[in-house]
Amino acid sequence: MIFKNYVELTDHIISKAKKTPFAIVCADESHTMEAVIESYQKQLILPVFIGDKKNITEYLTANGLNASDFEIIDETDPTRAAQTAVSLVHDGSVRGIMKGKLDTSQLMKVLLKSENKLRTSSVVCAMSLMEIPYYHKLVAASDPALCIHPSLDQKAAIINNAVTALNNIGIECPKTAILSASESPNPKIPESLEAVQLKEMNQQGLIKNCIIDGPLSYDLCFDPESAKIKGLTSDVAGDPDLIIYPDLVTGNAVSKALVLNARAIGSSVILGTAVPVVLPSRAASVEEKVRNILLASASVN
Amino acid sequence: MIFKNYVELTDHIISKAKKTPFAIVCADESHTMEAVIESYQKQLILPVFIGDKKNITEYLTANGLNASDFEIIDETDPTRAAQTAVSLVHDGSVRGIMKGKLDTSQLMKVLLKSENKLRTSSVVCAMSLMEIPYYHKLVAASDPALCIHPSLDQKAAIINNAVTALNNIGIECPKTAILSASESPNPKIPESLEAVQLKEMNQQGLIKNCIIDGPLSYDLCFDPESAKIKGLTSDVAGDPDLIIYPDLVTGNAVSKALVLNARAIGSSVILGTAVPVVLPSRAASVEEKVRNILLASASVN
Repeated sequence: MIFKNYVELTDHIISKAKKTPFAIVCADESHTMEAVIESYQKQLILPVFIGDKKNITEYLTANGLNASDFEIIDETDPTRAAQTAVSLVHDGSVRGIMKGKLDTSQLMKVLLKSENKLRTSSVVCAMSLMEIPYYHKLVAASDPALCIHPSLDQKAAIINNAVTALNNIGIECPKTAILSASESPNPKIPESLEAVQLKEMNQQGLIKNCIIDGPLSYDLCFDPESAKIKGLTSDVAGDPDLIIYPDLVTGNAVSKALVLNARAIGSSVILGTAVPVVLPSRAASVEEKVRNILLASASVN
Repeated sequence: MIFKNYVELTDHIISKAKKTPFAIVCADESHTMEAVIESYQKQLILPVFIGDKKNITEYLTANGLNASDFEIIDETDPTRAAQTAVSLVHDGSVRGIMKGKLDTSQLMKVLLKSENKLRTSSVVCAMSLMEIPYYHKLVAASDPALCIHPSLDQKAAIINNAVTALNNIGIECPKTAILSASESPNPKIPESLEAVQLKEMNQQGLIKNCIIDGPLSYDLCFDPESAKIKGLTSDVAGDPDLIIYPDLVTGNAVSKALVLNARAIGSSVILGTAVPVVLPSRAASVEEKVRNILLASASVN
């Protein structure tokens, strides 16, 4: 399946009418509530609110909703609120977690605590999904936010996390490009040699449900013409569904360049945990928060 | 001085009416000739053609020019043509070199041969100049093409090369941002610690004629709003004239993302040699070649 843009992806998720149950941790903050209510009304999620019950009830009522239609857990302490979300994951009542008004570190400390058994991969990482001008479909990329210099094994885990999410979204066999500075492996660029190894691991069946090619330069990833001019025979060049960044600095800079200067429309989600986690930045707009919720909800099987 | 775009820069260079003499090595190739003739007619350069005299004469005549108005050196062997350009630099008759129809490696091998004494810096590097949507002025960046993992000393040399070129262009004290993933130095990201060192070297007068700040994330470089929201006091954040990339893969990917997906307008030049060198890629359009010539010509004192 291919999604040209967020509108197509949203329509697809709504048509599946699965309404993923989501725990909203420390929900009582207006931007969070606004994004959650909008996502609920779009049929994307069924929120379970954790936070100040009185405030949450007021927000819902002010938005014309009946608070008694929702599960609201009255818990104002951030750490206990996060711990409550973990219990809801384990008893199967939610399939996603979203951060409200608590610090990222407070939430992640609880989620990643080994007793809580929420890690399902050796690597917890971020995946973005971008609608980019002059590219013909949505493209995922990882990791633009968490893993600084992933090793070969960690890159394989990052790919597995992303591929599982993309498979769930409906992209059956994501074309996966390992980004470097050119298509030639260069001993002076270790990332380019790792790209060759990841491709081989895919061919040997060690990384499944995707097609990997690399190393590929940015233009060979995104521009079918460049691939044609260079005479590159590749199932991935010019058409990837997923980009694997060599490191955090590259991923961070490229994704910010796309958003700031190309006005790309992005979203992101945390993977590698039992359920996807939405960690919107403080500065994120309501629209971006809704897109993050959409991506997380779509990433669930 | 600030240039909002290429039009302003072109007007400025033309107004100086300096017509930089340029050696065109292996000039007899139609795209090269077209770009050189256009640059000559715009008063940017005075070409000295090295190549097949008969072909060059024909190109000039076909473009309504009088071949006898130009110096044309009949030399069809690429290595000897490159060596001729070196001699022209040394006797002061040219102040720039442009590659025509020969391989980059053939040309650079001659230019960087130690006997030829053309290196003037410990680092030969590329500098780009970009007109980027949603940024208010032209911005230079280095190195997107040559140095794979520059060391601290090499980064200082890269900055010096770029600052000299920008000073010559008319940008007196370039605001220089050292790109990383955030504004916090992080021991797990060595580039971010080097950014702090480069800033200190600038404050101590070891890197002159510019103001350095770093580490800075991409949004803190290019978005004055982000800098304001983060409460960052910096002369550089939100307003750099020059970006220093942490490594080749980052620089390559960011600059290609800007050109492909943001439709930024770019050019590039090789610095660290006695005269700037124009090395257009085979796929470059005539317009891009003209911009490269403009940048090189502007970079000369």
